Amino acid sequence: MVESATEPGATEVLAEFAVSGVLASADHTEAVTRALVDTVAVSLGASGAEGDRILRTWARRESPYGPSTVWTSGETTTPSMAALVNGNAAHLLDYDDISPSMPLHPAAVLMPALVAVAEARGTSSERFSEAYEVGSAVFRAVADVLPQHVHYARGWHSTSTVGRLATVAALGRLVASDVDTVRNALGIVASLTAGSRVNFGTMTKPFHAGAAARDAVMALELAEAGFTANPDELDAPNGFLERYGDQEVAPVGSAGQALGERLEYWADAWPSDAGLKRYPSCYGTHRSIDAMLTLRETAPLAEMPTRITATVHPRGTRALRPGLPATGTQGKFSLEYTLAVAWLRGDVTLDDFTEERFADEEAQALLRRVEIGESAVPPHGPAEFDTGYSVVEVTFPDGGTQVSRTEVTHGLAADPLSDDELRGKFLDCCAAGGYDSETADRIIAAISAEPGAAFTSSIPKRSTE
Amino acid sequence: MVESATEPGATEVLAEFAVSGVLASADHTEAVTRALVDTVAVSLGASGAEGDRILRTWARRESPYGPSTVWTSGETTTPSMAALVNGNAAHLLDYDDISPSMPLHPAAVLMPALVAVAEARGTSSERFSEAYEVGSAVFRAVADVLPQHVHYARGWHSTSTVGRLATVAALGRLVASDVDTVRNALGIVASLTAGSRVNFGTMTKPFHAGAAARDAVMALELAEAGFTANPDELDAPNGFLERYGDQEVAPVGSAGQALGERLEYWADAWPSDAGLKRYPSCYGTHRSIDAMLTLRETAPLAEMPTRITATVHPRGTRALRPGLPATGTQGKFSLEYTLAVAWLRGDVTLDDFTEERFADEEAQALLRRVEIGESAVPPHGPAEFDTGYSVVEVTFPDGGTQVSRTEVTHGLAADPLSDDELRGKFLDCCAAGGYDSETADRIIAAISAEPGAAFTSSIPKRSTE
Repeated sequence: MVESATEPGATEVLAEFAVSGVLASADHTEAVTRALVDTVAVSLGASGAEGDRILRTWARRESPYGPSTVWTSGETTTPSMAALVNGNAAHLLDYDDISPSMPLHPAAVLMPALVAVAEARGTSSERFSEAYEVGSAVFRAVADVLPQHVHYARGWHSTSTVGRLATVAALGRLVASDVDTVRNALGIVASLTAGSRVNFGTMTKPFHAGAAARDAVMALELAEAGFTANPDELDAPNGFLERYGDQEVAPVGSAGQALGERLEYWADAWPSDAGLKRYPSCYGTHRSIDAMLTLRETAPLAEMPTRITATVHPRGTRALRPGLPATGTQGKFSLEYTLAVAWLRGDVTLDDFTEERFADEEAQALLRRVEIGESAVPPHGPAEFDTGYSVVEVTFPDGGTQVSRTEVTHGLAADPLSDDELRGKFLDCCAAGGYDSETADRIIAAISAEPGAAFTSSIPKRSTE
Repeated sequence: MVESATEPGATEVLAEFAVSGVLASADHTEAVTRALVDTVAVSLGASGAEGDRILRTWARRESPYGPSTVWTSGETTTPSMAALVNGNAAHLLDYDDISPSMPLHPAAVLMPALVAVAEARGTSSERFSEAYEVGSAVFRAVADVLPQHVHYARGWHSTSTVGRLATVAALGRLVASDVDTVRNALGIVASLTAGSRVNFGTMTKPFHAGAAARDAVMALELAEAGFTANPDELDAPNGFLERYGDQEVAPVGSAGQALGERLEYWADAWPSDAGLKRYPSCYGTHRSIDAMLTLRETAPLAEMPTRITATVHPRGTRALRPGLPATGTQGKFSLEYTLAVAWLRGDVTLDDFTEERFADEEAQALLRRVEIGESAVPPHGPAEFDTGYSVVEVTFPDGGTQVSRTEVTHGLAADPLSDDELRGKFLDCCAAGGYDSETADRIIAAISAEPGAAFTSSIPKRSTE
């Protein structure tokens, strides 16, 4: 590692980018608006779920007054507390946005923090979008520098850890902060950074997104008031990059230089690395569901398959639950169940993961005929593939088969959800959260009209406790 | 690592100990009471300091109502918010309790959380003491298992990291919780565990103690309400012990077994590992100040030394600031300044670290005559020493010298502060915080009469903002 005395360190590089880094000349307002629509959708869908109910009951006692809206109840609280509850709700259904290059859910942390602070201080749509772009770039750039695969493999939940830094940066842009304040805020939040993957599958997983959003808001507010931290926390010996990353395998060059290069890249490239989930299940099921739905378009639907095989790229089953699912919630992480549902119903929606629908006999019978494997060489189509693939083959009673292959999941930037599909997801989520379609229409219209915090006035009130 | 299927894991062992672990038969109420007196003293001394003022202003907006007292203002807030502000105040002056076997400040985290929850729910003095004992044992046992020297060397601030687990355990005992709830609370708090040593020297260092206390209260409250986490978070692959420790160099045997053994040991032994600070400066200055004060008893005080040398054990200067101090705050971490003060004034008190007293010409002249060194062989007295030593030698204009050696710092369990000295510290702190001696007397009397939360009613109100 060669670093001259005058070369700025990683903390400084990050703060400079947050405050005044130049973004792409392309207009990404639409991508930001869609990310906000999606985040609010999946949050409203979690309204009243056990993990939402418990946390917002706690939050209501803790901070009963403030300018920022709890989306799942319409009540108001302080910015940091709204960020906590809304971040938790946004990640609760495992239906929030993805980042195909690495396991991050940027919007679930960024949007709750940005909206909560924007409500408290006011902002323009333009600045809101710009702040989200800054956060999206920082999320990916910091993950690159750690680097992500080492950090994640050691058990850290990047959405929560990297998310704290990205959100401080985004908030710095939102409120037009200065470099020194953002450096102190980054130092403060580096001393609050946590979130473990072993808590996946519990209520603490979505809580990670909320805690990250809250801590970022708190760190910025304290730094603005003059609270101090090490202004070089990230790059100092024993600093963030050493504690949470591995500089032996990190990008070559100084941390500041590497981070600067990655920020420059992602400032322009983040929208191509974004994706909205088409199905409310583990992302590891999405390629296979896509393949099944394509296959189904030409298959004899009256016939019940005798066998379904799904073959995916090496490590393509890593995120799934091993064994057959025992509950609807486990079904979200089951390729067997989601493929059975896709065949039987022609789609995979939130409703499919209720315990009642999960118990459906036809689905239970069919999921037992699903076989899953990994292969370095796809059993259908060209031997080469890009980041991953899924080949689904269905066998019918007469021995006939149909096969389909997917590489790019529907919902990614390269194959985005149509406006109708996104709207359908919004309505589906609202229905799951107990909102009528008129209310859902009103909220989605408000977000689309003005990306930022203005939509919160259209959220209906529900009493907590 | 040999672990049978039926052997309980570390998380379970810890939760079992928290709920029903047997404590020593000896009565440690006096040690707990003294620790509470000391913690409240150093907190009141921080009242109005910049880091206290900013944090409690933030807290007041965040949670303006609740049953728990902010010690530095007398205002009330929620238990978790009181734990945050009081933990910050307790650690702010670097004058809080120590743990000579490892760099931990148990009381600064445990006491604020226990008092805040005890105020909200009520408890007996006996249970309060018992809960503090549980927390004290867990603090040291978890640090042993990580193990501490690896964890600390990697840049983690143990008071904050280990403190979160210890405080969850202590609170579990305080509120008579059950094992499942404590396991969930440990899982939740493991996803909130952070605190970096590179933030030492900034307002974020004391904030670590507050954040740890707050997170422990929050985790327990959420777990009580049914919020779930991995009940084996600590010992799972990629769990707390792997993320924050190093099982390659940790105690032999399974983590659960090792932790169980250490808990059994510390349940009895913690009071012998406790200490209250005699001087409001870095603990690394304490042995030398003691030696200087002893030497001074027989020295010709009218003579100004031409030279002062302090020789300490290897790595005995590690916690000090390198170079001469430029401010009163830096003086706290300066052996040169504290030795000059000890010689000139016969004691080292809070007042000595004001900028005005720091600028005193005599002190500034004398500190430039201090020379510091480390040596594996003490230059005076026996060649052997236990955990460390300091030899201070003073040379006078006529060439005569006086020398003194200290091994056990005054204030440790082996050489405890007298009741008068503790009372003197309390009064000194109260004066620094702007409380009159009548108020100070009233508060110390209330704590001494009933260790627990009852003393908070004697804390005077000050308005924040």
